[in-house]
Amino acid sequence: MEQMDGHADSPELEQLYRDFDANQLSPLWTQREGLMPMAPEPAAVAHVWKWQTLYELARRSGDLVPVGRGGERRAIGLANPGLPGTAYATPTLWAAIQYLGPRETAPEHRHSQNAFRFVVEGEGVWTVVNGDPVAMRRGDLLLTASWNFHGHHNDTDQPMAWIDGLDIPFSNYTDVGFFEYGSERVTDEASPAVSRAERLWGHPGLRPLSGLEDTASSPLAAYRWENTDAALREQLLLEDEGHPATVEQGHAAIRYVNPTTGGDVMPTIRAEFHRLRAGVETPTRHEVGSSVWQVFEGDGSVVLGGTEHKLVTGDLFVVPSWVPWSLHSTSQFDLFRFNDGPIIDRLNFARTYIPGENA
Amino acid sequence: MEQMDGHADSPELEQLYRDFDANQLSPLWTQREGLMPMAPEPAAVAHVWKWQTLYELARRSGDLVPVGRGGERRAIGLANPGLPGTAYATPTLWAAIQYLGPRETAPEHRHSQNAFRFVVEGEGVWTVVNGDPVAMRRGDLLLTASWNFHGHHNDTDQPMAWIDGLDIPFSNYTDVGFFEYGSERVTDEASPAVSRAERLWGHPGLRPLSGLEDTASSPLAAYRWENTDAALREQLLLEDEGHPATVEQGHAAIRYVNPTTGGDVMPTIRAEFHRLRAGVETPTRHEVGSSVWQVFEGDGSVVLGGTEHKLVTGDLFVVPSWVPWSLHSTSQFDLFRFNDGPIIDRLNFARTYIPGENA
Amino acid sequence: MEQMDGHADSPELEQLYRDFDANQLSPLWTQREGLMPMAPEPAAVAHVWKWQTLYELARRSGDLVPVGRGGERRAIGLANPGLPGTAYATPTLWAAIQYLGPRETAPEHRHSQNAFRFVVEGEGVWTVVNGDPVAMRRGDLLLTASWNFHGHHNDTDQPMAWIDGLDIPFSNYTDVGFFEYGSERVTDEASPAVSRAERLWGHPGLRPLSGLEDTASSPLAAYRWENTDAALREQLLLEDEGHPATVEQGHAAIRYVNPTTGGDVMPTIRAEFHRLRAGVETPTRHEVGSSVWQVFEGDGSVVLGGTEHKLVTGDLFVVPSWVPWSLHSTSQFDLFRFNDGPIIDRLNFARTYIPGENA
Amino acid sequence: MEQMDGHADSPELEQLYRDFDANQLSPLWTQREGLMPMAPEPAAVAHVWKWQTLYELARRSGDLVPVGRGGERRAIGLANPGLPGTAYATPTLWAAIQYLGPRETAPEHRHSQNAFRFVVEGEGVWTVVNGDPVAMRRGDLLLTASWNFHGHHNDTDQPMAWIDGLDIPFSNYTDVGFFEYGSERVTDEASPAVSRAERLWGHPGLRPLSGLEDTASSPLAAYRWENTDAALREQLLLEDEGHPATVEQGHAAIRYVNPTTGGDVMPTIRAEFHRLRAGVETPTRHEVGSSVWQVFEGDGSVVLGGTEHKLVTGDLFVVPSWVPWSLHSTSQFDLFRFNDGPIIDRLNFARTYIPGENA
Repeated sequence: MEQMDGHADSPELEQLYRDFDANQLSPLWTQREGLMPMAPEPAAVAHVWKWQTLYELARRSGDLVPVGRGGERRAIGLANPGLPGTAYATPTLWAAIQYLGPRETAPEHRHSQNAFRFVVEGEGVWTVVNGDPVAMRRGDLLLTASWNFHGHHNDTDQPMAWIDGLDIPFSNYTDVGFFEYGSERVTDEASPAVSRAERLWGHPGLRPLSGLEDTASSPLAAYRWENTDAALREQLLLEDEGHPATVEQGHAAIRYVNPTTGGDVMPTIRAEFHRLRAGVETPTRHEVGSSVWQVFEGDGSVVLGGTEHKLVTGDLFVVPSWVPWSLHSTSQFDLFRFNDGPIIDRLNFARTYIPGENA
Repeated sequence: MEQMDGHADSPELEQLYRDFDANQLSPLWTQREGLMPMAPEPAAVAHVWKWQTLYELARRSGDLVPVGRGGERRAIGLANPGLPGTAYATPTLWAAIQYLGPRETAPEHRHSQNAFRFVVEGEGVWTVVNGDPVAMRRGDLLLTASWNFHGHHNDTDQPMAWIDGLDIPFSNYTDVGFFEYGSERVTDEASPAVSRAERLWGHPGLRPLSGLEDTASSPLAAYRWENTDAALREQLLLEDEGHPATVEQGHAAIRYVNPTTGGDVMPTIRAEFHRLRAGVETPTRHEVGSSVWQVFEGDGSVVLGGTEHKLVTGDLFVVPSWVPWSLHSTSQFDLFRFNDGPIIDRLNFARTYIPGENA
Repeated sequence: MEQMDGHADSPELEQLYRDFDANQLSPLWTQREGLMPMAPEPAAVAHVWKWQTLYELARRSGDLVPVGRGGERRAIGLANPGLPGTAYATPTLWAAIQYLGPRETAPEHRHSQNAFRFVVEGEGVWTVVNGDPVAMRRGDLLLTASWNFHGHHNDTDQPMAWIDGLDIPFSNYTDVGFFEYGSERVTDEASPAVSRAERLWGHPGLRPLSGLEDTASSPLAAYRWENTDAALREQLLLEDEGHPATVEQGHAAIRYVNPTTGGDVMPTIRAEFHRLRAGVETPTRHEVGSSVWQVFEGDGSVVLGGTEHKLVTGDLFVVPSWVPWSLHSTSQFDLFRFNDGPIIDRLNFARTYIPGENA
Repeated sequence: MEQMDGHADSPELEQLYRDFDANQLSPLWTQREGLMPMAPEPAAVAHVWKWQTLYELARRSGDLVPVGRGGERRAIGLANPGLPGTAYATPTLWAAIQYLGPRETAPEHRHSQNAFRFVVEGEGVWTVVNGDPVAMRRGDLLLTASWNFHGHHNDTDQPMAWIDGLDIPFSNYTDVGFFEYGSERVTDEASPAVSRAERLWGHPGLRPLSGLEDTASSPLAAYRWENTDAALREQLLLEDEGHPATVEQGHAAIRYVNPTTGGDVMPTIRAEFHRLRAGVETPTRHEVGSSVWQVFEGDGSVVLGGTEHKLVTGDLFVVPSWVPWSLHSTSQFDLFRFNDGPIIDRLNFARTYIPGENA
């Protein structure tokens, strides 16, 4: 080991360091810059995964790997190249493609980890959350918050794939997770178009008098594409009419929220949907915290740390903390995003920097 | 003045009381029971107003009284018989029928007082809230929270009447109110079916990214009957299917909420809608705080302090604090309710008592 | 009744108004300005009560009026001249001098109303709050929040007087109050220098692990003069040293707070202590909500709505909503203040206006 | 790779796994149990560090390693044996002994990471927080919350050592940290007994009117031993007198709190002090989240995951998530504790389990 001035350590200092090691100690002064950088220096890297590749590998898994108790899910995680040996998309977030063959069932279980599914294409699977069957359809966001029992079953003769998002890396790292097995088959095999959660909670601005206690996670298990699409469409129309509605010119966006609080849908995961008009280029943003995006529809690209990546429907990319990003749209460009925003916000670490803007 | 033991006061005591008076003082011991009763002893009384009578008087006002600057509104307040000399429905709440003739306009103004309109019949008026025209239709709740400019204009050749609810008595009593005149005509005479507020905020569980700041009052200016009706219908269907959804057997209810917080729509006024199946009798409840109810549809009655009152569409009644009430339904029975619940809750005075139930 | 243009009403209109009366209705248009003024027009007026007069009348009451069950307290309320027929200091606040003779006991009771005592001179009484004897000494603020049993007993051969502050007017007006008798004598006649509440909660920044649930009112029953005095002294010293600490130049002030939340000590009452250096004149302020002040020590005056009132130790004055006030100090000038700030703040009615300042 | 039933994978499956690797993907089913265990299975292990060893190594560092810009601090971190290659006490917490020689200065800097110091022995150093010199004395907790400039200087001819606690591991893992250099010397070399922060904020239940905005971290930079000791002593006395005050029989404890909110002193770190009477054995607890403890005074032991460790003044130990722990006291036994409780609580992961107790 060398001292900071480049000189070799003295024998006494060498001995001191050996004694540190022997006593499970480690000096700050030799590693301060790595531990406490001037700005976030994530090990995770920006990366793009192509949906076509993902889907094809998921389909092959469908042929080769059974789904069932133990492995629990036929889910294939995005493994960030900067976090080798893990299946983590970012330090806090897990993102995976999950694939369920015709008539298959993924057995019920529950866990501390917060989870959601987002459907970029297909339909026919019902996720059963605490006994409530929730149809999964294109464009829908489906929640399975911490400690809710859930399983999935494919009610059709077609396979279906979607993405799963969870806080597995965060939960694993902070050692907060519990897990419990449930029923081998889903506890309710009905296939209603609308879940009970939506029937009770899916009315704008109306709260059941039987549900006046706030909940840590949203009681609304399904956020339907029709509503998301309408909300974004109206924002752009309002912008056309000269009224404030969008985040910035040509950029509509919604956050999915817990109707009992107006806050994020789950304590660790934020979910949003963004729509750019054709020809929009968003300002380059540095943000604390990491995000995963999936293109839902349209053509465009993302510039990540200065490198442009072309994107088509289904493609996923991750933005580690403080890596600058900007979206460019060729056509109308729809993207789903989730991130660890609630963690960052609740612990007071939020910062955003847009070069050229006043602080 | 007599002493508490019934003896006449001594000359010294008489002199003391005169000296109190002369010095703007008043003893507690002679009036403690009135000031601090064992349980609320409201001066306001339970009372029923018949819609037919109200409407007919409003119609006559339409012929005789112009609407315009100064008087501002052709609104006729329910004057609680227990609060003589006031136009207060309860100590905290104002309730009125407002009537607007064909093509008439009620000029714009704004005030600290929180206000809403509820429509029991008719349509054709737009209330313009901060320049956003909001259609008023049967079954809708329309908000005009504190300090928002608002006016109303009737875009049709038919008159229209509705009820107004405000915290005028509370604001007047606590001396918190400001008032400002605005435009003589409404600032936007368009008559869209859907307001901008609804287009931006009326999507269940979705929050515009341009609106992440919580607001003291709901940004959703209109709560439409279609949604309210659907929410109540689903609660009763869920009950039929064996799932928890209703307040109590046969009694569905929603609270109108601010989507940015999940809490009450305005800081001083709570609004709810209740639906009873035919043949339901709710438990007798004593509640701290005062309420105003209006029958929206159906037949039934209310028992107020032991007296039963038959009710039909449009009839209004008030329930002062701690006066026991119970609803009885002959048919499916729909009622709108507003009260001072947020005042009671935020200041920690809430209590409910249902005789026969455990505390 | 005349119309707004000064013309006599037509017979039809006269009949309409009679029909309103007969049906418990009251039009807005004839009374809008009174109900909804451009700015608060309180009925309550600014007024000053001299401590010497109060104390002398209290002393005479001590000779003539027994203290005991029924009347409960030998308390003489400040009766605002603008609120005739009441014993209200302001629309929301009760303020009284309470007097307890040698060895007397005021029996225990509890009520929904929030109460405190502030001691401008003397000592020797213990207020027993839920069985915890709390010594009352000069400069102390003692709390009896909603629904805590409490009685007072004089452990000495000297009388003692102090001021009581309660939300009786507010509670009475909104019909939220309950009352219950307790023990005839105080439940603990010990006379410790320090209460159990202080021993558990009176350590700055330290919270007992057995008390992690937040409470609506402060669990700290006593706020001692030594601490208040030290806090104010330090603010002025810090100001001398060039550091931000005071409200404005020469004006130190603290708010008494609930240590479980950092917020007001009780849900309806705010309590503060202000100290002016000699020769300070505070800016003229208009504030929504009403206040009661008592001079604790020093000489000065208050300008209330343009009229100056000289003040000495013990003098009390009320500032109704929006009445402009300014304090002027001749010597170091110490004042205790309480007001309905939590009501105003929690219901979003707060406004302050200082002429000459930018909004 | 083997399948879960122990059979070797087929060539097709082997190829699939290779394709996963090539495409930065990783299947859930082969690693689900590791990623999502039935209960927390922390990599970090329970471990004890002896103060005598730590102090001696720190003293030797004082002779061999200069303190100054770059390395910034002569701090030696506890390196959890289960987290090799890091200097992390637990996955979320950094704990170190810091040593400052006579007249030495540790230069000023600021960082996103939240930090505190706790002093088990000695005095003579002032930590200067945003220009406010804060004396460090035995038993004191000193805060340096996120983004406050701070440096330390030893104003005496004696060295001083203390422990530092930070959220470095958490901040590093989640990539939220920023860092900035400040002054080479502390910006105020005065050595007052009491800091300005204490003069403004250190009065129980009193809040400066100039400080009504809540702050994310406590504005009270110093929590003095005199207060902590008094609070604990009173809890045990109250217990003696038969009043509720302690956590459990013979176990007094306080939490250090932010006086503006009553909540934790910093967004990521909870700090507490515990005192056991002689002869107390606390129930065995499993808790989600990790803790670091330091013995302040007295003799006793901790049982960690079934193994007993004798402890004397200054000894430190870590309790990883869900590892059962129990304290046993031989004499009166005083311990300081800090943990990641705010992270666990704010993200809704809290759980405690005491075998034998009802859930």
